[in-house]
Amino acid sequence: MRIARIAHPEGIGWAVVEDDGFDLIDDPFRTGPDDLRPVRTAHGRSHLPVSAARLLAPVQPRTVVGMAHNTGSADRELAPEAFLKPARSVVGPGAAVELPAGVGRIDAEAELAAVIAADGSVFGWTLANDVTARDLQATDARWAQAKGYRTFTPCGPWIETELDPERVQLELVLNGQSLGSASTVHLARGAVEVLDYLGSFLPLGAQDLVLLGAPGAFGPLTAGTTVTVRSPQLGVLANPVRTGPAAAGPGTPSPLRTTSGVFA
Amino acid sequence: MRIARIAHPEGIGWAVVEDDGFDLIDDPFRTGPDDLRPVRTAHGRSHLPVSAARLLAPVQPRTVVGMAHNTGSADRELAPEAFLKPARSVVGPGAAVELPAGVGRIDAEAELAAVIAADGSVFGWTLANDVTARDLQATDARWAQAKGYRTFTPCGPWIETELDPERVQLELVLNGQSLGSASTVHLARGAVEVLDYLGSFLPLGAQDLVLLGAPGAFGPLTAGTTVTVRSPQLGVLANPVRTGPAAAGPGTPSPLRTTSGVFA
Repeated sequence: MRIARIAHPEGIGWAVVEDDGFDLIDDPFRTGPDDLRPVRTAHGRSHLPVSAARLLAPVQPRTVVGMAHNTGSADRELAPEAFLKPARSVVGPGAAVELPAGVGRIDAEAELAAVIAADGSVFGWTLANDVTARDLQATDARWAQAKGYRTFTPCGPWIETELDPERVQLELVLNGQSLGSASTVHLARGAVEVLDYLGSFLPLGAQDLVLLGAPGAFGPLTAGTTVTVRSPQLGVLANPVRTGPAAAGPGTPSPLRTTSGVFA
Repeated sequence: MRIARIAHPEGIGWAVVEDDGFDLIDDPFRTGPDDLRPVRTAHGRSHLPVSAARLLAPVQPRTVVGMAHNTGSADRELAPEAFLKPARSVVGPGAAVELPAGVGRIDAEAELAAVIAADGSVFGWTLANDVTARDLQATDARWAQAKGYRTFTPCGPWIETELDPERVQLELVLNGQSLGSASTVHLARGAVEVLDYLGSFLPLGAQDLVLLGAPGAFGPLTAGTTVTVRSPQLGVLANPVRTGPAAAGPGTPSPLRTTSGVFA
């Protein structure tokens, strides 16, 4: 079953994805995936055709966590190690990835992500692009900046609730050119092992995202192109790439500075 | 003005803190601090005495961010560097800090924290305890585990909307014994500089927390004691310390493993 978050003329909501459109449902993170409840819009519609809706990021997480050095099998020699991404860096299918100026190479990474349920169990799976300012990692030891810019975590297109996470094929496509396909079976640590490690310390809950690492190639993003993560099991996550807002120069007031008198 | 999140017999809500209790208000992150709106409970009460309410964590953030190496002035020689803590690690005044077993020394750090408004500006300020599993930092380069356990981010007791963040006195008290008092004026980088740095890349919004670094001493936590962060400007944040749940042994099913068939 595929569950999406969609924007439509009457608002924003959840839906089961069918071949001919979307069947609207109540918040599936409240009911659980086994007890989905149909809902109607204010105008009485329970079904929307594909053309009447737009896919949003399938989750609005509070925690986004990824695994450092979890690519090929050689990484097994290192202890498992997690990093956090800002929850607000998540964007959905079709939303622009904005490249900050002056930070050097920025890579896309095609990953499988676990979507967490309210009780901490796995709700389902989706695709994610773990956008990373590669050159910044050398000086930004905690990666908060290197992986933390606005728009740096595209995910979607929907949540697949039935999937063997240890055999998901992932392909990264940069502006129409494939960098090749790889399976999650080649990750140093698979989904079960990663989730066991994180479960030993990290509080996780409804809509949280666990990025499982990139088993295949990654590649640099260029403004004016499109980056696509695709999988036969999970669909297509495509995002245009554009130049981000110019970095504020020295002395430029930050939005954080304009406060209601607290610095007065 | 002091704004708190409280639990009372009729539910959970926001309130302005007065000497004789709490004046209930609508969500201040929706209205902004300059347009607070009084509300009544279902039973018509607009004011609650101190004895009828319990302080909760003043925010439920999506992003909690701290600054690495931002203590004494020598740290200015290093570039600013941020780390993320899990949003779900936040607990309020009086809630237990749980010490995981087998991870060595766990320290308290007394910090000033900025509370962010919906538009990304500063809404106000509160106290935070940046609990850190010190020995883990040596092998956990991204600090996601070392700073990321459940209950590792006590904050409160309320949000102060009027404050000079560059001159806040902070004292760390471990089981009644003061480790001394220090001012935020001695931080390598003060609030304005930190918020400017974070504003250059990090998406922040309503209820997010920015931990500004510990200007004073930190110290190890012991189960059965109380850890207190206090400030003449911001009040008292006290938390009991206890032993956390035993670490799951190898082969123990993690909560993340019990899913509704997704691993079937």
